[in-house]
Amino acid sequence: MKGLLAWWEGRCVSSKFIRFIDFNLRGIGQVMFQDNPLSGLLFFLAIGWGSFVAGMPQVAIGGLLALIAGTLTAQWLRVDATALAAGLFGYNAYLVGLAFGTFLGVSPLWWAYVVLGGAVSVPVTLAVANVFKSWGVAALTAPFVLTTWLFLLASYAFSAIEGSGLPMAAGITAIDPAAANPLAFGDFVTGILKSIGQVFLKASIVAALLLLAGLAVNSIAAAAFALGGAIVAVVTAHVLGAESDLITGGLMGFSPVLTAIALGAVFYKPGVRVALYALVGTVFTVIVQGALNVAMAPFGIPTLTAPFVLASWFFLLPRQHFE
Amino acid sequence: MKGLLAWWEGRCVSSKFIRFIDFNLRGIGQVMFQDNPLSGLLFFLAIGWGSFVAGMPQVAIGGLLALIAGTLTAQWLRVDATALAAGLFGYNAYLVGLAFGTFLGVSPLWWAYVVLGGAVSVPVTLAVANVFKSWGVAALTAPFVLTTWLFLLASYAFSAIEGSGLPMAAGITAIDPAAANPLAFGDFVTGILKSIGQVFLKASIVAALLLLAGLAVNSIAAAAFALGGAIVAVVTAHVLGAESDLITGGLMGFSPVLTAIALGAVFYKPGVRVALYALVGTVFTVIVQGALNVAMAPFGIPTLTAPFVLASWFFLLPRQHFE
Amino acid sequence: MKGLLAWWEGRCVSSKFIRFIDFNLRGIGQVMFQDNPLSGLLFFLAIGWGSFVAGMPQVAIGGLLALIAGTLTAQWLRVDATALAAGLFGYNAYLVGLAFGTFLGVSPLWWAYVVLGGAVSVPVTLAVANVFKSWGVAALTAPFVLTTWLFLLASYAFSAIEGSGLPMAAGITAIDPAAANPLAFGDFVTGILKSIGQVFLKASIVAALLLLAGLAVNSIAAAAFALGGAIVAVVTAHVLGAESDLITGGLMGFSPVLTAIALGAVFYKPGVRVALYALVGTVFTVIVQGALNVAMAPFGIPTLTAPFVLASWFFLLPRQHFE
Repeated sequence: MKGLLAWWEGRCVSSKFIRFIDFNLRGIGQVMFQDNPLSGLLFFLAIGWGSFVAGMPQVAIGGLLALIAGTLTAQWLRVDATALAAGLFGYNAYLVGLAFGTFLGVSPLWWAYVVLGGAVSVPVTLAVANVFKSWGVAALTAPFVLTTWLFLLASYAFSAIEGSGLPMAAGITAIDPAAANPLAFGDFVTGILKSIGQVFLKASIVAALLLLAGLAVNSIAAAAFALGGAIVAVVTAHVLGAESDLITGGLMGFSPVLTAIALGAVFYKPGVRVALYALVGTVFTVIVQGALNVAMAPFGIPTLTAPFVLASWFFLLPRQHFE
Repeated sequence: MKGLLAWWEGRCVSSKFIRFIDFNLRGIGQVMFQDNPLSGLLFFLAIGWGSFVAGMPQVAIGGLLALIAGTLTAQWLRVDATALAAGLFGYNAYLVGLAFGTFLGVSPLWWAYVVLGGAVSVPVTLAVANVFKSWGVAALTAPFVLTTWLFLLASYAFSAIEGSGLPMAAGITAIDPAAANPLAFGDFVTGILKSIGQVFLKASIVAALLLLAGLAVNSIAAAAFALGGAIVAVVTAHVLGAESDLITGGLMGFSPVLTAIALGAVFYKPGVRVALYALVGTVFTVIVQGALNVAMAPFGIPTLTAPFVLASWFFLLPRQHFE
Repeated sequence: MKGLLAWWEGRCVSSKFIRFIDFNLRGIGQVMFQDNPLSGLLFFLAIGWGSFVAGMPQVAIGGLLALIAGTLTAQWLRVDATALAAGLFGYNAYLVGLAFGTFLGVSPLWWAYVVLGGAVSVPVTLAVANVFKSWGVAALTAPFVLTTWLFLLASYAFSAIEGSGLPMAAGITAIDPAAANPLAFGDFVTGILKSIGQVFLKASIVAALLLLAGLAVNSIAAAAFALGGAIVAVVTAHVLGAESDLITGGLMGFSPVLTAIALGAVFYKPGVRVALYALVGTVFTVIVQGALNVAMAPFGIPTLTAPFVLASWFFLLPRQHFE
């Protein structure tokens, strides 16, 4: 692994174009906090596969286009070179493109929307990062969430943009208890794996396995917390009586997966106390996911990873030391 | 009074368990800014009485359980000892438990919800306090509001949690003028006292008198501003033509009561100019209460003390000096 | 021009009353970032004319009353003298009054509402300015937006306040494509000019020309960016397929006009790179306008200049250097 990365770094040094590809691959890797081009490549393949089998190539294409637009914008804005090289201006742009491919129809103006969304995600990233730097906390995927929410909401106002994949706006009602079925073992495992895939908006089991592989090549701890977070999320959601279809589709678990990695393996030094803190944070993220599913129903747009951002900020801003 | 508190402090020094009780009593006292175990005890008795006569013991029990969960979590997180001893990690947890007892039905998972809510309120308190420390302003009851909103919203998504006490989600319509009746003198007095009781979610006159007593044992100014704030709120709401039932039930006045205490007797040095500033802030809080009653109607959850938090932050962040 | 302003400054020095008028005129000028009493006077005449021809004198009267209330409150609070002299405590109050005149009916309590709204806008301005000073960014018109949203929302809860000019609360639905008609050349020009007028909530072409004159007497660049921003906004909104009536009425363009001035001529040093950045920011503001039109539909209140505030903060918080 080390040899492979050293060889790749050699190629990057020799070519600006290869270096540009490296920036973008690391950008994809940073969706799950991995500053590693191989992780990025495996994630990219996971999304490509997931889009292909779902008959929605526009998801992978939108992600790539927005990612390139974001990286070029970051270079034009002459952002901090270290942050750019670590992929920190790519992951939000990439997610913006995946979301536009998932929730919007491919009209002629969709292409402009994707490029503009990827480009705008960069000042938004700088803005959010500057604000939260005051408290030593990262922007997480908040720039993706904010940018995408605005562009998706606006699709209702613009006839040239088709919100064909968006949920219908609906009033708030309590869940029908009949929708909270017992989970068979197969549903249970499916829910866990799709929770990992849905981090990239993909309900695909093969994608999930590739994503776990992409995590493992850079950090075994990250892979373990991703899997553990998914298990905790599915169990918690089920015990609380969430809608079975949401659980099995991975839609109650993708934010908790990110919280588990962030709290357990990225922003705090791993350990027993940190693991317990991450466990509470992960369970809390399931509740925040339920809450935002309800709160956003009247607006006809998805929560995206807002539950992860909100819950993790609440658990990172205390800046506790666990040593 | 001083002798009593000195005797109690002696007991606290001699026993970790008594000290733990002291933390919790001060936590209850801090709901109305009183770092005094006797105030906390009187508030606790007020809530106990109010819950008992309303046939809802789960309110007092939920509050106590969440409070203990919060204090234990704060100790586990090794928070700042001075803040812990002053009860600053208890008041949000206590309010969370009162709210869960008031708005949710007691299903088996309700108990877990209360403990988790109380525990989570501690990192949320640390997070909000860290952010607002940047501008020298306190977290107030924002951690209670944020935590409770998320858990109550989520109850709509979870079949094991019963939102039986929550308001129905509803579209926004203008008030029916017929709902703004003239207030008889009895209604007027009832509205004032219940405005004080509703700070703890209790529409009880006896509770209100106990709460005033709890304020007075530690700070006559706080008691005076509480009563004055309640009078201003009821008069303002009535002049503006708010719904009479809301006014008489104390539901237009509990946030203004807190604003009046906070601006008039806690965060600024009392005086004529400060009293005028607090008066404008209290009137403004009535308008914010009206605004949030409207804004939250589509979400089927109550405003809690958000009007107090919002209005007081607007009047504290200027950091004016009135000397 | 310089002689005129020097003469006026001489009058201000000789009379506290004239100085008070100067504060207020500069306050009006600051709605479009112009610290110049002549700009303020021309803006004031524009609003007066627009209100008069629309048969709504209460708009101009409300603006003036709230402005005076705000300036007096700022003096009572002993705010920073330089900021007061530059009109920075007037523009939000003035806009609050214009909005109350536009959206609320003139009941007896309307007058108290206007005075209170103008007064409260001052602590809110101080609060927002203190928070954003941490990142070197201005409060923009956020204090106006926040204060006005709260007072307008509250009008639904108070029978003594008539929300006769407010939009009806409505669920979110996609735009009817038939509402996005081709724009005739006349509509196109009307849309551009009314976009400038709507900065002050006035859909008047004469008002727009007076506003452009008011900008030009202090800053040709500001006038150019206002006009350029309006053109970009109308073209963008039309290409995206926004509702033609909204575009022609100036309702898709007033926030982008402010973004264009702010990014292009006020907070960054004008230049080619800045102009390109401002162009992207202006196009983005059109999308944010579409998004907030949708998001606020269920609440029955207008977006006001929130799209400008949000988009400009995202483009100012990065604190990029373009030299």
